[in-house]
Amino acid sequence: MDTLLMDTPCLLLDAAKMARNIARLQAHLAPLGPRLRPHLKTAKSVQVAARQLGDSAIGATVSTLREADVFAAAGVRDIIYAVGIAPHKLDRVHALRQQGCDLAIVLDAMAQADAVADAARRLGDTFPVLLEIDCDGHRSGLRPGDPHIVAIADRLRAGGVELRGVLTHAGESYNATTPDALAAFAEQERRAAVQVADTLAAAGHPCTVVSVGSTPTAHFARNLHGITEVRAGVYVFFDLVMAGIGVCRREDIALSVLTRVIGHQQDKGWILVDAGWMALSRDRGTAGQAIDQGYGVVCDAQGEEIEGLIVVQANQEHGILALRPGSRAALPTLPIGTRLRILPNHACATAAQFDGYHVLDAATDTIPFWPRFRGW
Amino acid sequence: MDTLLMDTPCLLLDAAKMARNIARLQAHLAPLGPRLRPHLKTAKSVQVAARQLGDSAIGATVSTLREADVFAAAGVRDIIYAVGIAPHKLDRVHALRQQGCDLAIVLDAMAQADAVADAARRLGDTFPVLLEIDCDGHRSGLRPGDPHIVAIADRLRAGGVELRGVLTHAGESYNATTPDALAAFAEQERRAAVQVADTLAAAGHPCTVVSVGSTPTAHFARNLHGITEVRAGVYVFFDLVMAGIGVCRREDIALSVLTRVIGHQQDKGWILVDAGWMALSRDRGTAGQAIDQGYGVVCDAQGEEIEGLIVVQANQEHGILALRPGSRAALPTLPIGTRLRILPNHACATAAQFDGYHVLDAATDTIPFWPRFRGW
Repeated sequence: MDTLLMDTPCLLLDAAKMARNIARLQAHLAPLGPRLRPHLKTAKSVQVAARQLGDSAIGATVSTLREADVFAAAGVRDIIYAVGIAPHKLDRVHALRQQGCDLAIVLDAMAQADAVADAARRLGDTFPVLLEIDCDGHRSGLRPGDPHIVAIADRLRAGGVELRGVLTHAGESYNATTPDALAAFAEQERRAAVQVADTLAAAGHPCTVVSVGSTPTAHFARNLHGITEVRAGVYVFFDLVMAGIGVCRREDIALSVLTRVIGHQQDKGWILVDAGWMALSRDRGTAGQAIDQGYGVVCDAQGEEIEGLIVVQANQEHGILALRPGSRAALPTLPIGTRLRILPNHACATAAQFDGYHVLDAATDTIPFWPRFRGW
Repeated sequence: MDTLLMDTPCLLLDAAKMARNIARLQAHLAPLGPRLRPHLKTAKSVQVAARQLGDSAIGATVSTLREADVFAAAGVRDIIYAVGIAPHKLDRVHALRQQGCDLAIVLDAMAQADAVADAARRLGDTFPVLLEIDCDGHRSGLRPGDPHIVAIADRLRAGGVELRGVLTHAGESYNATTPDALAAFAEQERRAAVQVADTLAAAGHPCTVVSVGSTPTAHFARNLHGITEVRAGVYVFFDLVMAGIGVCRREDIALSVLTRVIGHQQDKGWILVDAGWMALSRDRGTAGQAIDQGYGVVCDAQGEEIEGLIVVQANQEHGILALRPGSRAALPTLPIGTRLRILPNHACATAAQFDGYHVLDAATDTIPFWPRFRGW
């Protein structure tokens, strides 16, 4: 198991860290009751999905119909497409459902309910629907208490559509940084979902599914009463944003970009590498956190952090390494050709720059390649 | 020619605008003398490359060996790989040269010269080399006047390596915003390259190639005396960063992301679309410019700008549209399902999120698909 002969840049996945991350969330959720519905958008890999789903997951979450296509073909039979439905996509949803995948959709507007009801009649489908609830003002969804909630439920029933339940996502939890603040976001997420489920039940629309989740809230939830399932995605790899929030340690991050030194500007304290933003992505998710990690934290070829060294700038195929502002570390001597590993700000974005994972596993002598897909 | 039936998000390329952009740079350079060496990293498309190269280009520039592989296989015979060479890549460079591609490499350090000389002896290759010159402190390269320049040239000759010339790139020109400032950067780029070429000639190393370029300087250069070729890449599509610098108008941008409305948060003035950062990229290149365009400028389905509307936030598969801060425009009524087109901050980054281009051409009734490739 050695990366010496690998061309750079390429994407490395530490199998042991991934396995620990998966086991950790399962262990946290088991005593709380709800089952896990992993979000497969981070890895977009059949091999990673198999490990996320294991024997215990209730089903999968996806962010594109292309993900639904691939994972349904791989045998996943229960999927939520968790982005508000655009009406023109309903024919693709129906085709997947016809192939035996129980694919559910998400909506938050009467115009979508009308379109789904029209398609249900036209295609003879029941299109299981989850109403999207806005628990924290982050993005889409209906606020708890919005009278449209029951009106949309009535409209769906009248149109022969199955209202399966409610779904919410506390995206604002990414701005929390303490266990108590994260637990409070988890409770806010839970309360919003349960409140709307109760409203719907009282109006004659009982919910089979009450779905919450984000990686931070999934790990810090203390009470999930009334919740049937929890969604999370980036937990499988973790990243510097999650470490900055305090959801993981940097040494839990399973993903890194292997790169090599291609130059120096000694008077500026710069070391140039062959991983630019095309490899690392343009994601600067730590820019707003207490510690700005630039375009990533630099480790040696074995994955040990090099004190103070980050990617301070990125051009398309050039990364510029330098000491973090304020660091008292000495700039290391890294000759041309030295292999390094960069921990990513945002695993979803960095992984998307590559066609697959080179999987490092101490148990094997080989480095298998697990392909990724992309597109919509 | 209609995008009505196309799934979203997808990438649109306006063929007429691309053709105008290509013709404009050719017309600007023709009276100045040097020939154009287009950078093919922006489009990564054989079809686009054929139009950039046309009959008049002197050769191509690439940013990865994968680009060299693909374009060499498509018949391009003169290529500069314009990222400082990592020694382990020399075997791949040699293999491409053996196949008949005159592939040149770039370096700026004695350690690289040593490695190239070693590989030249081992493989029986002359590895044409361009010395990278730093004309503006932007990234890599040797400063004009650095005594290593002649020492490296001597080392290359002693090692049987062909020193073909010098190359520089005024990346800092992206921070200029007036024609005079852009012309001054072009002159700075020219002067640095010519100075080093003169130094080398005086030391017995005449330069066949004196190569300069960036999209801003290529368009604003007034005098290119002593220069043999000019490189530029993003000129083929243009983008909001280039419009912010003043190199093009927004209506010259040939690339856009087709998307559809999937929701609203009316009290916040938000319109949600199915193009998030996975489609638009995380590039926020206009964030530091006079007008911050968020994640992109919103146009209607025909490509006409909608006054004041930009993508203010992006999640993985959700874009949030809102009026630009300070805009006095009224938020338009855009029902669920409405098609829109987003102009990108950075064409290189946004195009990289897609597998190809849907090419809009008023001369044809069909919408051809031109594939892109990626990887290293």
